[in-house]
Amino acid sequence: MIASAPRLEFWYEFASTYSYLSAMRIEEAAQAAGVAVAWKPFLLGPIFHAQGWTTSPFNLYPAKGRNMVRDLERLAAERGLSFAMPKIFPQNSLAAARLAIIGSDEGWIAPFTRAVYAAEFAGGADIGDRQVLDAVLRRLGLDSERILSGIEQPACKQRLKAQTAEAQARGIFGAPSFLVGDELFWGDDRLDQALAWAKRA
Amino acid sequence: MIASAPRLEFWYEFASTYSYLSAMRIEEAAQAAGVAVAWKPFLLGPIFHAQGWTTSPFNLYPAKGRNMVRDLERLAAERGLSFAMPKIFPQNSLAAARLAIIGSDEGWIAPFTRAVYAAEFAGGADIGDRQVLDAVLRRLGLDSERILSGIEQPACKQRLKAQTAEAQARGIFGAPSFLVGDELFWGDDRLDQALAWAKRA
Repeated sequence: MIASAPRLEFWYEFASTYSYLSAMRIEEAAQAAGVAVAWKPFLLGPIFHAQGWTTSPFNLYPAKGRNMVRDLERLAAERGLSFAMPKIFPQNSLAAARLAIIGSDEGWIAPFTRAVYAAEFAGGADIGDRQVLDAVLRRLGLDSERILSGIEQPACKQRLKAQTAEAQARGIFGAPSFLVGDELFWGDDRLDQALAWAKRA
Repeated sequence: MIASAPRLEFWYEFASTYSYLSAMRIEEAAQAAGVAVAWKPFLLGPIFHAQGWTTSPFNLYPAKGRNMVRDLERLAAERGLSFAMPKIFPQNSLAAARLAIIGSDEGWIAPFTRAVYAAEFAGGADIGDRQVLDAVLRRLGLDSERILSGIEQPACKQRLKAQTAEAQARGIFGAPSFLVGDELFWGDDRLDQALAWAKRA
């Protein structure tokens, strides 16, 4: 990554269906636009709780939830992606997000993120299950035992908390979100507009 | 309108910012796609109330509201549209929606709808004000006095109620929404996809 290259922050939540759509296409789209991507996993749970929601709005508002599933089916079909709602929704994304924090330091965050989303939304796996995460790490050729023990370290837990607090402080209220400096774009539908903004900025 | 032409229902709420975006472009987009549009004004208020909201989610969730305004500014600029948030939001859209019901029978619903949205979101007018609506009708060369007295008729009130109940029964939870048969598309971002669906249907 060249320091002066246009830069986009990709803020995502592993339990979020629309974040899955963006994760699967952002690297190619950003490369085509000449924009560098900073992958920023965070937790939506604390942000939703702060506004009085105890679960996903797609569960709180059933008509909205039904449309989201159908919308994802249509968009995934258009893009040649597999999609099926997992049995549990939203999933517990805490361990996956902590692993991604480690992956951010070690350079494997992008393929790890895609592999987790594929397991969850194409494979129907439960990403709250350590065995699922272990399998994902191993398939990427990573030292799963060392990395999984890393997410129990206070420093790793603290970094995810800080990243979530940063998301909230910068106005993020849903996922995926894209930031170009302070300019906030919400939703997979805004990825192209955000990339164009990063190029102009 | 040819009975066998592909058909799209455009469900909109006069207080809705994203409905403004769709209203200003749907006729041209539908014509290019060879799709006939049925204009369906309804009220979001009763649907929001049914899910526990007393006002727009953009007021209930301030971070979401701030992003909506910025998003509209960016999209309007891209499309060469004027946009400014009116002082009161959401506006009282009851009279405008009842007028549109009459306009639906009399063939002036599309230009009336665009003129109301332009007054509200480009001109900063209060569309709950009868004088504003009177001016809109007059500028369209319509008999404002007769038409405004029509919205006090029980039959007109009842038709808007029935149309709102139909929206809710068919799964609509926000505006704009597009229906192709039972296939529901939510949001201005889905207008092109909905038109393509109508052509294929």
